[in-house]
Amino acid sequence: MNAGTHTHRTRVRYAETDQMGVVHHASYLLYLEDGRTRLMEERGLPYTQIERSGLGLPVRRVELRFREAALYGDELCVLTRVSRLRAASVAFDYEIRRADDDTLLATAWLELACVDLSAPGRPVAPLPDAVRECLESAEPPSARVSED
Amino acid sequence: MNAGTHTHRTRVRYAETDQMGVVHHASYLLYLEDGRTRLMEERGLPYTQIERSGLGLPVRRVELRFREAALYGDELCVLTRVSRLRAASVAFDYEIRRADDDTLLATAWLELACVDLSAPGRPVAPLPDAVRECLESAEPPSARVSED
Amino acid sequence: MNAGTHTHRTRVRYAETDQMGVVHHASYLLYLEDGRTRLMEERGLPYTQIERSGLGLPVRRVELRFREAALYGDELCVLTRVSRLRAASVAFDYEIRRADDDTLLATAWLELACVDLSAPGRPVAPLPDAVRECLESAEPPSARVSED
Amino acid sequence: MNAGTHTHRTRVRYAETDQMGVVHHASYLLYLEDGRTRLMEERGLPYTQIERSGLGLPVRRVELRFREAALYGDELCVLTRVSRLRAASVAFDYEIRRADDDTLLATAWLELACVDLSAPGRPVAPLPDAVRECLESAEPPSARVSED
Repeated sequence: MNAGTHTHRTRVRYAETDQMGVVHHASYLLYLEDGRTRLMEERGLPYTQIERSGLGLPVRRVELRFREAALYGDELCVLTRVSRLRAASVAFDYEIRRADDDTLLATAWLELACVDLSAPGRPVAPLPDAVRECLESAEPPSARVSED
Repeated sequence: MNAGTHTHRTRVRYAETDQMGVVHHASYLLYLEDGRTRLMEERGLPYTQIERSGLGLPVRRVELRFREAALYGDELCVLTRVSRLRAASVAFDYEIRRADDDTLLATAWLELACVDLSAPGRPVAPLPDAVRECLESAEPPSARVSED
Repeated sequence: MNAGTHTHRTRVRYAETDQMGVVHHASYLLYLEDGRTRLMEERGLPYTQIERSGLGLPVRRVELRFREAALYGDELCVLTRVSRLRAASVAFDYEIRRADDDTLLATAWLELACVDLSAPGRPVAPLPDAVRECLESAEPPSARVSED
Repeated sequence: MNAGTHTHRTRVRYAETDQMGVVHHASYLLYLEDGRTRLMEERGLPYTQIERSGLGLPVRRVELRFREAALYGDELCVLTRVSRLRAASVAFDYEIRRADDDTLLATAWLELACVDLSAPGRPVAPLPDAVRECLESAEPPSARVSED
């Protein structure tokens, strides 16, 4: 992962481990959430600002593949990249690596829908221009698609 | 614990363990939350109804004492009792026991404030009569106090 | 989902919601974990017994698709079925439905590897016969595959 | 809090909020865990090293008091100080403050027991000298007590 990739570093918490002695698989979703919110924040668009405008970006699809176990105390690099930007959704590609030795621990792909939090039933809504521009700046040129 | 005590049974989840091979201490707060919400629900007052009326019951104080470790797969009994009811707060006493052998695993005391979720700054608000009556029915007579 | 499908009922906890007012997407992985461990337990093979024999079943792949939001207080039905049984792995198909009205909230597919917890590096290990038989009893006939 | 106080900064995760729109109270226990493990690590004693020596430091008592709600996106300062060091236990005092405006959000006191993870029943064990020295260096002089 290179052009447009954002790197977020985080440390594994004790509470994130389970009795198998490794990080529980559900904890990775929290690392991914950190990854994309930090990417957006770094590009000038904190997620709180999106919610304040009445929109939300709930997760619609997740694909996760675990390769090596993360351990308590590990420093992780969460590499996040916009993989696809559509009219009313955005998808991210991820790699999670151990910072020490760059071992690839997990890969992931997530799709978020843009929804109108203030309308009944929270219908899908087009990504506003400000969000689109923020995400485009993090997207490789070939990933631009206009339909959802 | 006897008069007014509510018993909720729950099973330890794998994700609630940590690499020490026991339930992580933070998970107990989730069991306690289950305990008091089930108590209130059983007495006809689901917590969703309180929130719909514009009030919330955030936790203000916690005291927890761990005695024996809960393990993955354990069935737990969460014993909940109203310990003190004031104008704008309620406190609960708890015991968490392993269902199998009745071993006492943890005791706890929690105080919740009643707040007005719709007012700026969410100020403390008197417990409405319906909530008070629901909680009084779960309270030993000696615990009734009128000031907060 | 019918033949071999196991149904587990669980209630959404307050702590499982987020500030969007719905269940956070990571919580679904806990419901899925409950689903498959209860399925195995009901067929006579509690997961603790597998770990005691020195084996573990860590999650290797996850696919999740969210359709409708689960809400605090919802009772959920977690429908679990073995989708594929190989020499050293097992995959499960899932549906999560709201118990009240049977609305489909999410679907999922998870693959677990069988690993030897006592060997260095925790290498992949064949599923022991007892585990295989337990899972076969929960598997539709067409899903049987012998290679991993 | 001043002499011997360790400051750890952490950002509130979206998953740590609940539908009241604030950080769920159980999440604070994770911040506290981060606080004491970072304190010990900074003084040359990572917690992994303690566990490798066969000892564990499970939480035995917790007192938490919530004053103001932490919000999604807040940067928090976790101020940790050894409050009492005994033969086989250690207690920490905490303040959690919002980094932006130094608002006090919560205070806490936690006691950890030292236990022998390798002995049956995990009995209480004296804190080894290395751990004691590490913690003493983080302790105000008046807090030194030798009995447990």
